[in-house]
Amino acid sequence: MLPEIKPIPLEVKRGPAEHVRRLQVINAAWKHFGDHGYEKTSVAALAKDIGVSSTYLYRFFDSKQSIGEAVCSEALAQIAKKLIAVQKGSGSSFQKIRDVFQTLLTNGYAMFLKDRQMHELVATAISHNWECVQNHREVIRSVLQSIIEQGRHAQAFERKTPIDEVVKGLFVAITPFANPLLLQQRNLEELEDAARAMSGLVLRSLAP
Amino acid sequence: MLPEIKPIPLEVKRGPAEHVRRLQVINAAWKHFGDHGYEKTSVAALAKDIGVSSTYLYRFFDSKQSIGEAVCSEALAQIAKKLIAVQKGSGSSFQKIRDVFQTLLTNGYAMFLKDRQMHELVATAISHNWECVQNHREVIRSVLQSIIEQGRHAQAFERKTPIDEVVKGLFVAITPFANPLLLQQRNLEELEDAARAMSGLVLRSLAP
Repeated sequence: MLPEIKPIPLEVKRGPAEHVRRLQVINAAWKHFGDHGYEKTSVAALAKDIGVSSTYLYRFFDSKQSIGEAVCSEALAQIAKKLIAVQKGSGSSFQKIRDVFQTLLTNGYAMFLKDRQMHELVATAISHNWECVQNHREVIRSVLQSIIEQGRHAQAFERKTPIDEVVKGLFVAITPFANPLLLQQRNLEELEDAARAMSGLVLRSLAP
Repeated sequence: MLPEIKPIPLEVKRGPAEHVRRLQVINAAWKHFGDHGYEKTSVAALAKDIGVSSTYLYRFFDSKQSIGEAVCSEALAQIAKKLIAVQKGSGSSFQKIRDVFQTLLTNGYAMFLKDRQMHELVATAISHNWECVQNHREVIRSVLQSIIEQGRHAQAFERKTPIDEVVKGLFVAITPFANPLLLQQRNLEELEDAARAMSGLVLRSLAP
């Protein structure tokens, strides 16, 4: 969930600019999907619940899917932000690799499993390959690439293997911890154990 | 699918022993689930379709789930057999690691994706953690362990890391290629590309 959801000022003539209002709609939709599920929600029901007209919603989003994509985008952006913080952090490249696995697992688990409805929305997004999912994959790929480059620069990682090949392998290695469908098949303890085993394997593969 | 499904001799007084008849029932159930799906099938409908009485089926299986487990077991046993053939083969340990990924992917893809109903049955088996799934995991784990031991013995693989840790990492690494839920999210070309990247990463991690 987003940190706080403020009531939407319905009749504000001035005040929040369009993009702020849009964010408020996304916040409210997030909460609504969280309570009722994305698939079962209609734009009319959503509008009614948050106290605006469907027409008002259509000022910002041209379809229910657009609202779903925006909510999904916000959800994934929160994970992306944490991954970028890991990449920019001051730890060793080794530690950063471990932290990427842990960050994906902890946040994915919290978001997709504690919040079943968000899990459903992201599963829909993945199976239809929504743009928010493609963008999220790109963020993960670029975070991995930067960490590998840092590690190579610091001579902590081997440099023989073409970096594209390394990044591709790492991207596959994080799959079991980034995919809500897989996260739901295991409990947190098993997943943390698996993430430790996988990051250990990855680090051995990166050693000079 | 099993190679051939022979009609069940209903009125045979002598002839096939119990376990042969049981296998014939499994074959027929496999075909029936393949046409109609496991979830939607009742024991009565299955019995009718294969021309026996429900009572006859209950001689071999105490519930629909038992039949499902038996079919699932047969399906997974076919993949297990191929994995064991890889492990016992004459190739290098490096090649065997690559072949494990390829075998899981090719057979899983053929079984779970071309045959949607079998996909559904195995997904049910995984989500309820049926015994056939647990056994299959054990086979995979033991194949991986044997290949690592062979590679260490031949000094092709490093020996510093505790073998349990290595096997655990490898077991996580094969997940994206062994799980029908993930297989369905990608096309075969993407999966083969991912399997090559992952086995490359694994082999770099195993290098002395």
